[in-house]
Amino acid sequence: MLAFEPPLRDIRFLLFEVLSAPDLPGSLAGAQHLDSLLVDHIVDAMGRFAIDTILPLNAGADAQGCTWTASGVQTPAGFPEAYAAFCAQGWPLLCADPELGGEGLPHVLFTIQQEILSAACHAFVMAEAVNPCALACLQASASPDLIARWGPLLADGSVLATMCLSEAQAGSDLGLLRTRAAVAPDGSYRITGTKIFASGGDHDLTANIVHLVLARLPDAPPGTRGLTLFLVPKWLEDGTRNRVHCDGIEHKMGLHGSPTCTLRFEGAVGWRIGDPQRGLAAMFPMMNRARLLAGAQAVGLADIAWQNAARYAGERRQGKAVSTPGTTLAEPSLLIAHPDVARMLAIQRAWVEGGRALICWSAALIDASVMDAAVMDAARGHCDPAHRADAAALLGLLTPIVKGFVCENAQQAVSLALQVHGGHGYMTATGIEQLLRDARVITLYEGTTGIQAIDLLQRKALGDGHGLAVLLASIDRWTRRSKGEGATAHDEEIDAALATLAGTVKDVTTLLATASEPARLAAASSYLRLLGHLATTYLWARMLHAAAANPTQEPWHAAKRDTGRFYVRQLLPEALWLAAAIQADSAVSSSVNGPQKR
Amino acid sequence: MLAFEPPLRDIRFLLFEVLSAPDLPGSLAGAQHLDSLLVDHIVDAMGRFAIDTILPLNAGADAQGCTWTASGVQTPAGFPEAYAAFCAQGWPLLCADPELGGEGLPHVLFTIQQEILSAACHAFVMAEAVNPCALACLQASASPDLIARWGPLLADGSVLATMCLSEAQAGSDLGLLRTRAAVAPDGSYRITGTKIFASGGDHDLTANIVHLVLARLPDAPPGTRGLTLFLVPKWLEDGTRNRVHCDGIEHKMGLHGSPTCTLRFEGAVGWRIGDPQRGLAAMFPMMNRARLLAGAQAVGLADIAWQNAARYAGERRQGKAVSTPGTTLAEPSLLIAHPDVARMLAIQRAWVEGGRALICWSAALIDASVMDAAVMDAARGHCDPAHRADAAALLGLLTPIVKGFVCENAQQAVSLALQVHGGHGYMTATGIEQLLRDARVITLYEGTTGIQAIDLLQRKALGDGHGLAVLLASIDRWTRRSKGEGATAHDEEIDAALATLAGTVKDVTTLLATASEPARLAAASSYLRLLGHLATTYLWARMLHAAAANPTQEPWHAAKRDTGRFYVRQLLPEALWLAAAIQADSAVSSSVNGPQKR
Repeated sequence: MLAFEPPLRDIRFLLFEVLSAPDLPGSLAGAQHLDSLLVDHIVDAMGRFAIDTILPLNAGADAQGCTWTASGVQTPAGFPEAYAAFCAQGWPLLCADPELGGEGLPHVLFTIQQEILSAACHAFVMAEAVNPCALACLQASASPDLIARWGPLLADGSVLATMCLSEAQAGSDLGLLRTRAAVAPDGSYRITGTKIFASGGDHDLTANIVHLVLARLPDAPPGTRGLTLFLVPKWLEDGTRNRVHCDGIEHKMGLHGSPTCTLRFEGAVGWRIGDPQRGLAAMFPMMNRARLLAGAQAVGLADIAWQNAARYAGERRQGKAVSTPGTTLAEPSLLIAHPDVARMLAIQRAWVEGGRALICWSAALIDASVMDAAVMDAARGHCDPAHRADAAALLGLLTPIVKGFVCENAQQAVSLALQVHGGHGYMTATGIEQLLRDARVITLYEGTTGIQAIDLLQRKALGDGHGLAVLLASIDRWTRRSKGEGATAHDEEIDAALATLAGTVKDVTTLLATASEPARLAAASSYLRLLGHLATTYLWARMLHAAAANPTQEPWHAAKRDTGRFYVRQLLPEALWLAAAIQADSAVSSSVNGPQKR
Repeated sequence: MLAFEPPLRDIRFLLFEVLSAPDLPGSLAGAQHLDSLLVDHIVDAMGRFAIDTILPLNAGADAQGCTWTASGVQTPAGFPEAYAAFCAQGWPLLCADPELGGEGLPHVLFTIQQEILSAACHAFVMAEAVNPCALACLQASASPDLIARWGPLLADGSVLATMCLSEAQAGSDLGLLRTRAAVAPDGSYRITGTKIFASGGDHDLTANIVHLVLARLPDAPPGTRGLTLFLVPKWLEDGTRNRVHCDGIEHKMGLHGSPTCTLRFEGAVGWRIGDPQRGLAAMFPMMNRARLLAGAQAVGLADIAWQNAARYAGERRQGKAVSTPGTTLAEPSLLIAHPDVARMLAIQRAWVEGGRALICWSAALIDASVMDAAVMDAARGHCDPAHRADAAALLGLLTPIVKGFVCENAQQAVSLALQVHGGHGYMTATGIEQLLRDARVITLYEGTTGIQAIDLLQRKALGDGHGLAVLLASIDRWTRRSKGEGATAHDEEIDAALATLAGTVKDVTTLLATASEPARLAAASSYLRLLGHLATTYLWARMLHAAAANPTQEPWHAAKRDTGRFYVRQLLPEALWLAAAIQADSAVSSSVNGPQKR
């Protein structure tokens, strides 16, 4: 079985030394409940639950998978009991709204919770993590009555939610959805249509399931403007079975412990969430949370993969590495002593720790951007509306970066972890190959990387540009402070690289603003990676500063500094490639993919 | 089922318009039997066999896998019949030595054959393709008697060979092998030990199997210098069962149709190949062929993945792409019309066609480098010993590039093909996810990418430097010719990029020659990719020249030109990253991977 150690020290460092800096947008400095002892207690307990209860299920869940019969879906052995324990220990309530019975802790703890659980078992997270996303949707758009009826059940996990978006003909393009809704005399609705790719669309973890379903009212216009969102439970509150049926589950590359369902709605009873034909807007808070969640899953998967690769490389001896102190000539070296293996491990560490900083910063910005103080605990949101708007805009910019950059890097990292194991990495018994198969989905669901790139470029950077302006202004203050008199603990090398990169980002943003639409869209993925490096470099600069400022200066701080420098010297230069690719003509000639391809 | 169209046109173009240029090292200009009609006939027939007989087995082989019992290994349904047909049609003999009954065709046709078969079913290739590698080993080192006894059986495929190298404690480090050999009174040997990861170590495709086994004679020194190579058949020539037993097969991420066996030798009878304690040298021709073969597998896998992604993108409609001529506003666009999808397809095409050029060039250099005219058909080798030595050195340089660069790019390409399919790509029924799982092994077996990088940098580029000198001289002649008067059909953009890249390679090679050993080894993987781009850019420059020089100028030629330009503008700038990473301090601080990592 894979080993896993929750990254408690790195989490403490991020929360109390990096993200608490008062000058950082979304600073956790004023966050209530975020005292050190509480965080230690929570993360420690969460880690033990993940290791003792969830991790042991992961390999078996992959081998066994889910089982579909006409009477319902069975999850792998141990899942129902583990989920019951998860609820009994109150974990779903950690960051839920106190009005719904939750503990109302800062969202960053939810992100950390999900990262740790994802390291233990990605498939388990697929079941439990939709609820907070669904609650974000309900709280933003549903009627008080609907929230009162379903909110507490979702908050404590006694009912699980699903997102029902895709249909066979409609994946990335929700405008093609055909599922219909009709209003009933009592004000409820009847939903008819077939949805695919509904994660957890049916299972044996909870007695009831709540589906959030995009459908089209009569006379709705075509396209996304005609969509309305509905809440459709599996069992109605009067105890009758609703007319929603699971017609089967998918066979997938990985994530075998999570049932990916086809759901048939046959005049199923539902209730509207939000206004008619505002379904996409109502769905957005859920989708955005789910995109950030994917980043937490990605970091968790990359972390456990890296930990096991590092352990293997620290135990297995092969070949003679250079300069291995304490090794006699006759004894082979540890894998970790080989510079190329050390390089692969350093890449993994850099992506894990940089990615963790990004997902935690984004989580901090969720609380900082809370606009409706009536909905959330008032103490959690910023009081200054301008600050809140800045945080919301920055969060909007970071969301596609977390989904499109952190997730891609995590896949790379997991693949490198497999590579460190050599041929053994390809064997099922080693356990890494499951992680790679599971992780492959995270750049597909909740919007592919290409979709994120278009969102980032078109809607965010070249939209109102607010979030990018906030980021660049914050970076500008940072690098100017670095050059100012009396600047202490700043790392000159990374701050200089950050300033250069910020200049590059400004240049290519200006360039793309006036580029032809095909050229601009063809450059979107490169632009996403460039901005991913910008945000990551900024966080590494702040992490290096915080590490240097720590008075204890343990080996841990030196390792953090060296990891940051490795990132700057070995991974950040990808920005040279990206900028060159964007500045070249990015448009792909249609001849390349045209019919004469053979 | 996945569709597949053999890349006949690209093969013809490479063979008759690119690799036949007289000034190219390893030119096919003088290769016997390489007339256009014969190639068409062979490739066409090979393609039909692959599509009709092999491709239909692939998905089922993945689902069913191989079965081990104490009495032997069963391959998936249809494999024995397909292999019998493969032999009955004479395919194993295509490029085998006429002295062994082979047809003696140029090696490039073997490479093409393996690429096409790998597109159809990687697992099938694992069974049939070891024999030519084993024959290269036997012909270089075995006694005439051993060749006479086993050569013809391996040449026509009636016996299949395996490579028995790895042991549990010895993967990349063959110096740690413990399997023992002792000489018997009759001059044969008795082999004892346990080998792992023996592909095709047991199966039901042929009655007999021949294992090439590295083992250690009594009093042999430790390390690789103490190894000797042996031929150990499953059944002895007198009809008795040899004492070699398959103890089990591995469960793997992919390649389920190929049994990865643990073999126990218990005083098994064998015969020495080559001199005592020269086992590694004797194994090298086999290993080098196997590394080039991995490149052909990689290109085949990437080709079928790309073809199906392009087909899907040309059929599925999602969203509104920009500037879609002939599309009304109400109609969603084809995926292929979306610039980001077109970009992903262009990357795949660039890696497939660039990789194919590299594997075919390498194959041409095999024939051009034949040193022992007595062994091979004299007409196939170059007469000029200096030319042969140049070709051999260049082949030595390209072998780790094919294994470490083409294979990594192919994995990227297959992953992008999956990505083009969106969520459907993750589903088993689509078929692409199998290709990604199968392809994941090609950067692990026959020496990981890291091993290739060290071989390239330490043994080749910074060794005698012969191969790199040959490549750079050839490139230098090309780019000077491009600038010369009367140069026609040269593409100025790519030739300029090639000249710049050659300069960069010279600079970083000089830099690394004097770098510390840890820094040098930490830069090896980046250096491998840089040289991969150098060889690929050179071939794209020649392909663009050949396409421009073709008098017909069909749309196919424009597509080739545009693909080459896409490569230069969008993929080649990776060299900026690589050069910066190499020029920065590449050495990884031990603190990054040290014990204080948490």
